[in-house]
Order: sequence, then structure tokens, then C-alpha cells
Amino acid sequence: MTAVDLTAFIEKLADLAGQTILPFFRTAIGAEDKSGGSVFDPVTEADRAAEAAMRRLIRETFARHGIIGEEFGTEHEDAEYVWVLDPIDGTKSFISGFPTWGTLIGLMHAGRPIYGAMAQPFTREYFFGDGKIATWRGPGHDHAPTLRRLYVRACAQLSRATLLTTSPLLYPPAELARFRRVEQQVRLSRYGYDCYAFAMLAAGHVDCVMEAGVKAYDIAPLIPIIEGAGGIITTWTGESAASGGNVIAAGDKRLHEAVLALLAD
Amino acid sequence: MTAVDLTAFIEKLADLAGQTILPFFRTAIGAEDKSGGSVFDPVTEADRAAEAAMRRLIRETFARHGIIGEEFGTEHEDAEYVWVLDPIDGTKSFISGFPTWGTLIGLMHAGRPIYGAMAQPFTREYFFGDGKIATWRGPGHDHAPTLRRLYVRACAQLSRATLLTTSPLLYPPAELARFRRVEQQVRLSRYGYDCYAFAMLAAGHVDCVMEAGVKAYDIAPLIPIIEGAGGIITTWTGESAASGGNVIAAGDKRLHEAVLALLAD
Repeated sequence: MTAVDLTAFIEKLADLAGQTILPFFRTAIGAEDKSGGSVFDPVTEADRAAEAAMRRLIRETFARHGIIGEEFGTEHEDAEYVWVLDPIDGTKSFISGFPTWGTLIGLMHAGRPIYGAMAQPFTREYFFGDGKIATWRGPGHDHAPTLRRLYVRACAQLSRATLLTTSPLLYPPAELARFRRVEQQVRLSRYGYDCYAFAMLAAGHVDCVMEAGVKAYDIAPLIPIIEGAGGIITTWTGESAASGGNVIAAGDKRLHEAVLALLAD
Repeated sequence: MTAVDLTAFIEKLADLAGQTILPFFRTAIGAEDKSGGSVFDPVTEADRAAEAAMRRLIRETFARHGIIGEEFGTEHEDAEYVWVLDPIDGTKSFISGFPTWGTLIGLMHAGRPIYGAMAQPFTREYFFGDGKIATWRGPGHDHAPTLRRLYVRACAQLSRATLLTTSPLLYPPAELARFRRVEQQVRLSRYGYDCYAFAMLAAGHVDCVMEAGVKAYDIAPLIPIIEGAGGIITTWTGESAASGGNVIAAGDKRLHEAVLALLAD
């Protein structure tokens, strides 16, 4: 099994997920509340159908690989290779019609994310990374399919940084207070956008993305993209972000250090 | 001059703006700070170039019409027909790479918005309304160009509503307190998305959009789209939103009444 095989296979998984999900986008479908009513946490038929389709293809192709998915749990978690699937990251964006959700597909080897993809089938964008290189495929200015290398941008100081988080409403109080310490020092703080914010960090358009309490499947697939573009992503205490938790990504290592110092104060 | 002429002319303006703006999207260009340094309020070369191009075409075609634009001020404001232009609504989204900004083009007759368009050239979407009908043109599930009527959705109760606002950080303290009263009662509150949030309200995917302190060019072009889709948009005190200010749009008139009552308390 070569790296080329895996790259093509991940694209195939993303295409399959996109074809499954897109017919559900912007149609009136019921959003089931899996949190038992306390928090609004929608999950759609599209999410389930796409994860089932991806799991089927993975099982057929790599019988010994493990799978961690948002919808159908974990199988062979201790395998050498483990797939991490989130068919619709940003379900709240999805049900609100915004094209800023994404299909996340990651492959872990011995617990380390080695390949990651974020696909947005409505805008026809595909972000891919292997930890060393990251690429974007999408419509160019003339709308023709275009392929580009992704590079983070330099930004050493908080006072010049654009910060993104999906929503401060999702933070527990202690994490919110720490987030606010960072937010108060940045040039521009914006909310929304889920995985799309991490993709824009890899593309060099924003400088810092913070989230509290994310799951492994929300973040592991994004790590090889961010690192491949030259960025850094860890937990708020500087550990590996591959298992989720409170995460911080920065395009510039100096900015990452500055944020970690503020969070530790 | 027939309604058909104007509809086609507005599309021509939108195409012109899109062709002018798109080459600047996701490229590293300087963002000039027009607020004098206190608030980060980026304005791009794309914004200026697109407004200049639209103004030129309007002047050539309708010499007596007035124009209100974000970048180059007002001319013939007291004309019978006045164009309202915002080439890039959502400049902060634009400079952060998110495809949720839009080109807003409105036509006022005797102070009342009669036609409105929101174009998103990266996603190739075009929202148009005349106060009686609203339409969407964009990529279908097979990515082929698709035309659809837009309809708001029914949602009578705050407890079932999805609420959008661009950012609570943009609210003055008094307005923020009133906004929070509404936010505390809704099912889901989401931030971000600028004009795109109003477009999704017209398309029936979200129920309520609130903003504080918007300008006429931010909102007048959206009114015929929202009303054409069956929705309602006013100021927080129920007046015409055409001049901007604090605005509230709802897909359902009962929801609109409930929000106005809460804001008045």
C-alpha cells in the first residue's frame, strides 16, 4: 500500500460523502436531538448516511483498519491504522444553510494523524494534508478547477492577529474566561465557521483558531492539513490535539507561544 | 423602462461586481483601516474597484438616478430612483477567506426599496427579490445552474427559532442587553455570516436575523428579497429598515411580533 493509494482513497471517500450529503443540504429534514434535550445538537440523516457509506468502503478495502466516527462509534480502535470520520462537521451551519460545514476524513497511524482531508461539496473545495504538504482544490477566479499549495501566513503578535472560534456560547465558564483573555488582545475576533476556520488558517487568511471541548473526529483530520501548511495545533497546554479537548491552532509558532502563555497565566 | 429591463440590468451590475472582486478574494492585499485605528474596519481595493465599475455603468445607463454607496458616498440622493450599493458586505469575512460575504445591489423608488440582489460570486449564488417574489440561482446538487423560488419558513415561537447575528462584539452595551433578552429565549443562536444570514432567512433555513447599527447600503438591498420570500424586516421599533439602524428580520410575522415585544420591554 503506497502513499499515493491512500491519497486517492481519501479523495474517493470524500467524493462518496459529498454525493451522499449534498442532496440533503438546504432541504427541510428533521434534525434529531441526540443530547437528550438540554443542548441543541442536531444530527442529520445525511450525517448518518455518509458515515455508513464511508465505513462500508473502508471495511471493504482495509478490513483490519479501525474506525472512529461521530455517528456510529468506534471499531478496532487499537488497530495500527485508524480512520477518523466526521461526515458533517458544523451540523448547525449545515441546517442553517451555510456552506461552511465540511466532511472531515483522517487517517491515524499508531495514534498519530498522518493524512487529513476537509471537503466542502457545495463550494467544491477539497483541503488535504499529510503533515508535510497541504493542498487546496477548488474553483479558481474563472471557476475552473484549480490546485494550490497551502501556506499559513506569518503573524508574530496577538495585536495583529485574526482569531476565530465557532461560538463563545459553546464554552464552559472557566474556558470562556481564558478565551476572553486571548480575545481581548487580538486585532479581530470572529465567530462561526467550524472546520472552515481551520482550513482558512491553513490557507493563510486567519492567524489563530481556538475551540473548547472538541472530539477527536472534530480535529484529528485537520492536524495534517494545518501542519502541512506550516502551522501548529495543540491543546491549550501544548499537548497533541489528536484526541480533542481544548485546542488552539496558529499559523505562526510565535503567536502559538504567546497564546499558550496567556492561557497558562 | 420595464421591470424586465431593470431585473436584467441588476444582474449585469452583479456580474460586473463579481468579475471585479473575485480576483482579489483570498489573495494577500492590504486592508486599509478607514476608522482611524480605533476599530478594525477593513476596506479592500476590490470594494472600491467594484463600486466604481457599478457607478460607471449606472451613470451611463440612468443619468438621472441617484446612488448611495459604501465607498464613494452619495450622489443625487433626492432623485426618484436611487441605487444602493455595497460591493462587499462582510469585508471581515472576505479578508478571512470565508465565502459568506456578498455584493448588495438595491434600487429605491421614492424612498422605498423595490428591487434587491445579493450575489456571492465564489459560490456562484444570486438572490433576487422585488418585494413580491424572491428567487435563488446557484449550483444544484449536480452542480448544474439551478433556479428556485425562495420562501421563508413558518416558526411562530422563539423557543423553536434559529437566531443569527454577525457578532455580539459589534453591539453597543444597551443594544447588546436587549439582544441578549431575545437570544436567551431562542432554540439556537449563531454568529457570523453578514448578508448571507438574511439570504438564508429568505431561503427558509433560519428564522430570525438581528443586527445593530447597520447602514442603509447594508440592508436596503435585502428588503425586497426578504419580503419577496414572505418574510418581514423592520427596525427594532417596527419602522422601515430601509435607512438602516437596528434591524430585525423574521420569516414568520408572529415571531417578528414576539421579538419586537421583547425588545420593547
